[in-house]
Amino acid sequence: MPRTDDRAPLRVALLGCGVVGSEVFRLLVEQAADLRARAGAPLEVAGVAVRDPARRPGLAAGSALLTTDAMTLATRPDVDIVIELMGGIEPARSLLLAAMRAGKSVVTANKELLGQDSAAMHRVAREHGTDLYYEGAVAGAIPLLRPLRESLAGDAVRRVLGIVNGTTNYILDQMDTQGADFADALGEAQALGYAEADPTADVEGFDAAAKTAILAGLAFHTRVTTADVHREGISAVRAADIASARALGCVVKLLAICERCDGGISARVHPAMIPRVHPLAAVRGAYNAVFVEAESAGRLMFYGAGAGGGPTASAVLGDVVAVARNRIAGIRGPDTSTYAELPVLPMGDALTRYYVALDVADRPGVLAPVAEAFARHNVSIRAVRQEGRGEDANLVIVTHTARESQLAATVAELGAMPAVRAVGSVLRVEGEEGE
Amino acid sequence: MPRTDDRAPLRVALLGCGVVGSEVFRLLVEQAADLRARAGAPLEVAGVAVRDPARRPGLAAGSALLTTDAMTLATRPDVDIVIELMGGIEPARSLLLAAMRAGKSVVTANKELLGQDSAAMHRVAREHGTDLYYEGAVAGAIPLLRPLRESLAGDAVRRVLGIVNGTTNYILDQMDTQGADFADALGEAQALGYAEADPTADVEGFDAAAKTAILAGLAFHTRVTTADVHREGISAVRAADIASARALGCVVKLLAICERCDGGISARVHPAMIPRVHPLAAVRGAYNAVFVEAESAGRLMFYGAGAGGGPTASAVLGDVVAVARNRIAGIRGPDTSTYAELPVLPMGDALTRYYVALDVADRPGVLAPVAEAFARHNVSIRAVRQEGRGEDANLVIVTHTARESQLAATVAELGAMPAVRAVGSVLRVEGEEGE
Repeated sequence: MPRTDDRAPLRVALLGCGVVGSEVFRLLVEQAADLRARAGAPLEVAGVAVRDPARRPGLAAGSALLTTDAMTLATRPDVDIVIELMGGIEPARSLLLAAMRAGKSVVTANKELLGQDSAAMHRVAREHGTDLYYEGAVAGAIPLLRPLRESLAGDAVRRVLGIVNGTTNYILDQMDTQGADFADALGEAQALGYAEADPTADVEGFDAAAKTAILAGLAFHTRVTTADVHREGISAVRAADIASARALGCVVKLLAICERCDGGISARVHPAMIPRVHPLAAVRGAYNAVFVEAESAGRLMFYGAGAGGGPTASAVLGDVVAVARNRIAGIRGPDTSTYAELPVLPMGDALTRYYVALDVADRPGVLAPVAEAFARHNVSIRAVRQEGRGEDANLVIVTHTARESQLAATVAELGAMPAVRAVGSVLRVEGEEGE
Repeated sequence: MPRTDDRAPLRVALLGCGVVGSEVFRLLVEQAADLRARAGAPLEVAGVAVRDPARRPGLAAGSALLTTDAMTLATRPDVDIVIELMGGIEPARSLLLAAMRAGKSVVTANKELLGQDSAAMHRVAREHGTDLYYEGAVAGAIPLLRPLRESLAGDAVRRVLGIVNGTTNYILDQMDTQGADFADALGEAQALGYAEADPTADVEGFDAAAKTAILAGLAFHTRVTTADVHREGISAVRAADIASARALGCVVKLLAICERCDGGISARVHPAMIPRVHPLAAVRGAYNAVFVEAESAGRLMFYGAGAGGGPTASAVLGDVVAVARNRIAGIRGPDTSTYAELPVLPMGDALTRYYVALDVADRPGVLAPVAEAFARHNVSIRAVRQEGRGEDANLVIVTHTARESQLAATVAELGAMPAVRAVGSVLRVEGEEGE
């Protein structure tokens, strides 16, 4: 094979030059020698597309590399690899599709776009014989999608449980360790820059839902979009829920859940209790982690920084090296086509467990009608505990695994029962039963 | 590109058919369709070399695939990929070298062999333009070496801290959670099959040292052999050490440590206290995990089953798919050559922190000479605490980071001091200071 020094450079176009983009640009320049050794050819920046050339950190305003015409840059004949770091659906989508149709290899960290329809993007990549890589889109620098695509080849993934949003994990962690309530923890996260001024995308689970769609698609080789993902955020989680979790030896996390089940897959985002001995329980602060259960490999977990310029840039460069190597070899990366056409089941069909706290009066005979309500919906009770006495009694119930629709129907019936003053809190419980 | 169905099969030779080998054979046969889709060509078993053809789980004794002549099978012209799962240095080493010289791609899980001299093996692979993959050699199914080789391309690894031996982690975990002493926990591990009848390779750190050499080589692109790795096992860890760790908010783990330091690298295996909030502290039972700190990617952790037929077979098959794809494309995997010729520093140059418990009499003036001994060796004290009173007093000291040789000299001096009745225990402390 020809030596690295003999190879013509691969030309890289960078679309977007914000926090991550400028870090990628810096590393492409400063670590050029190392990247050349690993990619097998020099990587040369062909151009950087920005909206406002006057405001570029790390790049001289007058640099000949700068352009505002992203479409021309993305499809220029001398460009081999297009890195998209603009975010958002448009113009990113049109630019990437045009780049792939022009035969460019594509690297992106755009979770919103991939969550919307990664299957369609993959189809275009396949039709035009090019690569579409996006390690940076989920869980920052954690090498996670590559193992799902490659290392677990020949294995069957059963379940993915992820903490994929650092903001919500920081907030829940503060609620757990400081006893803070949601509003205070959110305020602190905003003050520290972990949460946006408008925190909706994070706290209502939109960000996690897009990542769940991407993970489910890769794990089960099937088409899953953000719209298919059942989504609940953490704004309704109360300090009392966290305290209840603690009493049960659990911690509350916002989980991205992808499960293979009878007749299809379940893809959902919601807060859930997990046992403190579960590896995900130890994921603190704004860190991310993804827990995978596969047939042969067993239980795996990938942990790391979920966001930030450095970590995401590291993931992007890893992808750039991979697509560069594929390009030199004249191949595409492993095919992640949607060859399994599994349906995404409605939330009512998901199998889960419930923690239910009921505000009841401490009277003989209150348990019997409650237990009957569970039995009527075929929900088996795992543990019951009464907390407090007299008029302030609480009945705490943890169920065995049951269908979400049956659990929800049980809770609705409990809420209407005269013996129950109020349904205090309802949280799903995840992590293997018995842990 | 030709469709998968059009490609000639790649022929796979399996050397060794024990627990892992028979599982790999089973998966190659049962998941043939899936593996073909992922590899890009059918994978066909060309032969299985065993010592005793009469004793093969899962393979009919009379199967035409069986042979006792491993060398002929490993170099047969119709074989493309050689999987070595015999273990031990010889004949594995000769077989793999001969296979690579004959142009075969090689997959192995042989940590002993790679620890002995992976740099030499890589050199032969490079000279003959072929692949040498060994994901299964460290931390079972955890996709770990691939990220070190590929995803962290363009990043600089600063430190690797690993729990890479499940037996010792199980024993230390039992000591921590059950208050068991070493002998009882070892006995239980043996009864459960987690430890061998002769547990030396595990409890004295030999197994972990080989894996440390492999990890250090990949992390720092330099030549590290098992003999270069400073090694201490866990047989001297006492229940009292675990209790002391607990009192300090720490847990004791056997750590594989690879660090980039001034003038070279440190590669060592020893028990150490780590803070309970460190992600590695949550690794329970026989699980493995490897914690990586890199310049851009930040802190990463990879967690999973460290051993067992299923997990290791899964790692082996992931490698087989990767080398098959490379072979079809006519390329080799990313070069992990030893381009950085960094020296492995002697243990005395390692930077670490010490926990020291001294058996002293509770007399005024005992602290001053102790503090002077630390100061004389330029070791800064982070915290001192006296436990107990009167004749049974203990002085517990935790230092700041210092050179191992200075710490060791301090402890030697303390042992000779009249004010100190005995040096009760000495444990290194790892994990970032201040955590």
